[in-house]
Amino acid sequence: MTPTITAFQSSPDRGRGLARDMRVRWAFEEVGQRYDVGLVSFAAMKAPAFRALNPFGQIPTYREGDLILFESGAIVFHIAQHHAGLLPEDAGARARALTWMFAALNTVEPPIVERSAAMLLEHDTPWHADRLPMLDARVRCRLDELSAWLGDADWLEGAFTAADLLMVTVLRRLGSSGLLDDYPTLLAYIARGEARPAYQRAFADQLAVFLRTQ
Amino acid sequence: MTPTITAFQSSPDRGRGLARDMRVRWAFEEVGQRYDVGLVSFAAMKAPAFRALNPFGQIPTYREGDLILFESGAIVFHIAQHHAGLLPEDAGARARALTWMFAALNTVEPPIVERSAAMLLEHDTPWHADRLPMLDARVRCRLDELSAWLGDADWLEGAFTAADLLMVTVLRRLGSSGLLDDYPTLLAYIARGEARPAYQRAFADQLAVFLRTQ
Repeated sequence: MTPTITAFQSSPDRGRGLARDMRVRWAFEEVGQRYDVGLVSFAAMKAPAFRALNPFGQIPTYREGDLILFESGAIVFHIAQHHAGLLPEDAGARARALTWMFAALNTVEPPIVERSAAMLLEHDTPWHADRLPMLDARVRCRLDELSAWLGDADWLEGAFTAADLLMVTVLRRLGSSGLLDDYPTLLAYIARGEARPAYQRAFADQLAVFLRTQ
Repeated sequence: MTPTITAFQSSPDRGRGLARDMRVRWAFEEVGQRYDVGLVSFAAMKAPAFRALNPFGQIPTYREGDLILFESGAIVFHIAQHHAGLLPEDAGARARALTWMFAALNTVEPPIVERSAAMLLEHDTPWHADRLPMLDARVRCRLDELSAWLGDADWLEGAFTAADLLMVTVLRRLGSSGLLDDYPTLLAYIARGEARPAYQRAFADQLAVFLRTQ
């Protein structure tokens, strides 16, 4: 059965691959699994029919027969568990990969999202300029630590895993901030992710949706 | 082999069970696994020896022989995978539980942590009073949605799982905010979690550390 995911009908990122369906598309492409996409408007995402898929009214969701999942991290893990290619076979290495999946979404992403939200929603407030250095410092703290961990390695733990997939998409959210410019290690890491054929197919597909719906 | 976790030598929550080692302690107690605890100071958490356990310098970490894990969500999942009692046997139900684990840490917790950080670090700024209603609204949005999902149910998905364990600890961080007062459904949910004997043993153990180190 072909699984169906949901994505923005009109993504606020204008096709830059920053919406969270990109993570799931990329995972599907890495493992070679076909999938269908249902596009939803912002209004539809807050309606009861969609909240039956995700009580928090967010994309992406995942449906395969009776099984309904949400949260991009959980969906990527589900795909990785049921196909080869995104998680190591060894139990210990697999636990390490899951550790890094949670680190991407629970330690690295929150200060990045907090900064993005401030840029979007508090840009015109009198306090924005005073707060921005603090928000930048919180992001830089995580970038320092991540960059130190990576060092000369290509990926977080030896071979590419679902954790790298999530981490690269999290870091890409900093795109236009300029914060990554001080981290050549992280820029090269992101570039390695973006160079993967599976990433490129997923990116093209989400961009096509944006271009088609303009 | 008995696993060893790390916890604050002197927890900033003064023994209220809000530090993230509480989640791991509770999981161990639910499945009946003994564990050792290594206490670390704030200075030691930022030193190289600790960063070898967690590159982000945060508690809790988990060590069992050669296996080193961090991120409370990943550690709780690891415990749940290796012992009965915290995840359903059925593969679909297990994927749903993991969905809710990510929802607790990636959708519900971030606005709660953002509000707590503002209360702690921006309390004396000229903008704090103007920003607080926005921060409260973000938290309330998630509480509304979670409360609607729970309805009359005892737990998120039928029986108690690791997802409830994480969600209850996330909600408890709102303790003194007063925000939970409008959500009797969530107050009852938290109380059900706190009433579990495993929770009470874990809570007593972390409180004992705080009292002993004062």
